[in-house]
Amino acid sequence: MSKRDFLSTADLTRHELDDLLDLAARAKGKRPGQVLAGKTLGLLFFQPSLRTRVSFEVAMVQLGGHCINLSSDDLYELEPQDQAIMDGRAEEHVKDAARTLSRYVDALGIRSAARVGTWERDRQELLLRSYAKYSSVPVINLETNFEHPCQALADALTMRENLVSLKGRRLTLLWCNHPEPKSLGPTHSILQVAARMGMQITLAHPLGFEVDAEVLERSRGLAQDAGGSLLVQNDMQAAARGAEVLYARSWGCTKYWDDTEREAMVKRSLQGWRVDEQLMASTDNALLMHPLPVRRNVAATDAVLDGPRSVIYDQAANRTHVQKALLMQLLQ
Amino acid sequence: MSKRDFLSTADLTRHELDDLLDLAARAKGKRPGQVLAGKTLGLLFFQPSLRTRVSFEVAMVQLGGHCINLSSDDLYELEPQDQAIMDGRAEEHVKDAARTLSRYVDALGIRSAARVGTWERDRQELLLRSYAKYSSVPVINLETNFEHPCQALADALTMRENLVSLKGRRLTLLWCNHPEPKSLGPTHSILQVAARMGMQITLAHPLGFEVDAEVLERSRGLAQDAGGSLLVQNDMQAAARGAEVLYARSWGCTKYWDDTEREAMVKRSLQGWRVDEQLMASTDNALLMHPLPVRRNVAATDAVLDGPRSVIYDQAANRTHVQKALLMQLLQ
Amino acid sequence: MSKRDFLSTADLTRHELDDLLDLAARAKGKRPGQVLAGKTLGLLFFQPSLRTRVSFEVAMVQLGGHCINLSSDDLYELEPQDQAIMDGRAEEHVKDAARTLSRYVDALGIRSAARVGTWERDRQELLLRSYAKYSSVPVINLETNFEHPCQALADALTMRENLVSLKGRRLTLLWCNHPEPKSLGPTHSILQVAARMGMQITLAHPLGFEVDAEVLERSRGLAQDAGGSLLVQNDMQAAARGAEVLYARSWGCTKYWDDTEREAMVKRSLQGWRVDEQLMASTDNALLMHPLPVRRNVAATDAVLDGPRSVIYDQAANRTHVQKALLMQLLQ
Repeated sequence: MSKRDFLSTADLTRHELDDLLDLAARAKGKRPGQVLAGKTLGLLFFQPSLRTRVSFEVAMVQLGGHCINLSSDDLYELEPQDQAIMDGRAEEHVKDAARTLSRYVDALGIRSAARVGTWERDRQELLLRSYAKYSSVPVINLETNFEHPCQALADALTMRENLVSLKGRRLTLLWCNHPEPKSLGPTHSILQVAARMGMQITLAHPLGFEVDAEVLERSRGLAQDAGGSLLVQNDMQAAARGAEVLYARSWGCTKYWDDTEREAMVKRSLQGWRVDEQLMASTDNALLMHPLPVRRNVAATDAVLDGPRSVIYDQAANRTHVQKALLMQLLQ
Repeated sequence: MSKRDFLSTADLTRHELDDLLDLAARAKGKRPGQVLAGKTLGLLFFQPSLRTRVSFEVAMVQLGGHCINLSSDDLYELEPQDQAIMDGRAEEHVKDAARTLSRYVDALGIRSAARVGTWERDRQELLLRSYAKYSSVPVINLETNFEHPCQALADALTMRENLVSLKGRRLTLLWCNHPEPKSLGPTHSILQVAARMGMQITLAHPLGFEVDAEVLERSRGLAQDAGGSLLVQNDMQAAARGAEVLYARSWGCTKYWDDTEREAMVKRSLQGWRVDEQLMASTDNALLMHPLPVRRNVAATDAVLDGPRSVIYDQAANRTHVQKALLMQLLQ
Repeated sequence: MSKRDFLSTADLTRHELDDLLDLAARAKGKRPGQVLAGKTLGLLFFQPSLRTRVSFEVAMVQLGGHCINLSSDDLYELEPQDQAIMDGRAEEHVKDAARTLSRYVDALGIRSAARVGTWERDRQELLLRSYAKYSSVPVINLETNFEHPCQALADALTMRENLVSLKGRRLTLLWCNHPEPKSLGPTHSILQVAARMGMQITLAHPLGFEVDAEVLERSRGLAQDAGGSLLVQNDMQAAARGAEVLYARSWGCTKYWDDTEREAMVKRSLQGWRVDEQLMASTDNALLMHPLPVRRNVAATDAVLDGPRSVIYDQAANRTHVQKALLMQLLQ
């Protein structure tokens, strides 16, 4: 972890990752008590949230601490650009908000996942990185267009609970269809974690839905270093064959990032990218994972989401436990 | 109570009702202490709320527990229909939201009182019933168009405090005018409670503002079983005469439920349905009740709302105490 | 303090002010413990808030109490006018909201700083005063167009920490430019506190940006009684010369209060009213203060805001400590 922030799964060494997951598993088995009594966590949501919002608040309550929630409705617009002449709409600079909040709370979580420009711009996570730069307290990434590291921790814990050891296990990360343009955050974050764990990863998506080139390159390197592998595959059927974990999620097209109409047009021919019982049957009795929210009967059918191999609610429930571990590491 | 949910006053036996009110009275007299320490209650508001929101949060604080509040602004749209192909606006199915939240919190409260279709549709409480179906934790009805059971508990406690015993006492439930179309929730819920208590009930409203036929029939049966009675009356003056409790509230016209303009037109000639000192004088020194918010000088005059027989703030204050009792029963 | 409300710095005697600041300084040095355990503070925000919202919630947490936050999004419209016939948009009267909330919480904070009429109307703080009138629990002003007393307490604590004694010290309250029309709240509140402290005050603004005449007259009297002085100055350079504290903030034009376009036009020629290093150099090594949020490089340059004499984050941080003192005085 750079400084004491938690911004990206790329920053985590294998050792740090194992430590976090071990601590999470222990915190799940037995409540750690009021170890964060008197501590406060400020959460800033610039987009709606169900799991992240509630799981962090429950995590803090279970540790004796307290969450302060702010949403964009509670706030005015903020300026992320340094040296800006602030005669526009933004009422306060992120620098001032971050420094002020650092005097009030013990850690800050930021969700900022709006599409505001091209992929080249949005991949920089300007608002999150600006908070991290100016805060003197730890900053936690609650999801950007580029990463969703808390989700990936919960995913990794869920896989560990089911597969015991992850090294060499066959994970297929599968793009699936969705009526709306989606972020690449959960995909990038779990890709890097799975690579670090030495899994045999197949990344499957239609042509045009490549993930970020830098993330792909880094993940390939991490996988090889850890004795795993990373293969990109544009054939859904082939990608599912023999998988031990099928992790489905939609993500956006980085090429047409600022042209959502064009992305929607491209997706019209991709309705076949949907997980159903037939696809599941071709796997090696794979676990079905999805970070939620899921578009039922578009991304995956009711039958598989509600089927015996689905662990989607365990992924969600594990958010609380990995976040307790994270908060204990950052705040104790 | 069906399962451990609290959805409707129709589900409560006389014994369960007495138990809840007894516990509430004790919890009002003496703080029960930190009996819900470490417990969390999730509240989902799809409409604005003052009393329900604050009284539940205060109730949890007094019991040592914690509320997590979500409003529709914090959330995306949810799909209540099973087997839906979710290619529209709804980002998540209620099934998934309910199952996820059940892994985080110890109970869930839902306010969902929007008019979205005909009365035949809205009387089914689709969203609430969907949460109850899929949640593995207790679900509490925070008001629908059909019921508002927490309000009715507070009303019953307030009547008990003033009348000691409710059996045989004369209660007039009086429709009153309001510029906006209103739900039938509070009316249905108190009607069923008063019937169960064996009160002599007069339900008074203009022609066209009949309550739900099934609720009316059930309440009539409950009242007779308990030694009380239920009379429908379309003459406001006659209905008020001799009442020991005058409970005023507006409610919507089920016939024109999805045509609010027509309802507004009908109401233009009903401005006389307003509680004033003259009407109160014709009662048997009746208590004046109203569940709030109230349109002053439209539904009832300042003189009677602020008068010596008004118990409107006691009704509001008792929300905290009945809800503490309810939470103790559901969560301990 | 009138009754036990905290509405205006004009109500504070010198003795009460010293007591609050002494208590705040002690509460800053050493946490007072769970002295407000079981107590709840309701906060109603009719405008966005960062500092006030978070600093009050942190203050309550540190004292063992609990905040319940409501924003205008959680609520319907409220009627402040007595005897109103409520057939319009307002769903509830402030009287009923205030009396109801008084039965739930131990104190109420209200932020209500919208421009809704002329200065003659808005200076009356109708909504706040209506809450104070009808609440039976203490009401705290969280900022109106007329006053922001909690900010002024934090400002006074910050000055005391840096100057030790305030009597006779040279404070310049300086108007600065801003693209939006702003309230007079922070300016009025600190003006009255500084006057009460016997500071030598220079109030500097362009012609047309006079503060409220009654506040000015009262402050002049308070300053003289306390051995200080109050001078109005329309020349920015002259006003800064020799200052020991330069307190910058924009405020609105009371004459064109309900004509914001005209105010914007007037301000076009006032872009020179901006604090920069040159202006700071003409002071007596002055502290730079600003209540935040600040428009960087419009109201003041990055160089001075981030410079060695800036105490803007200390002002913000001190909000927590003065508010702990205030809450202990009101609620213990």
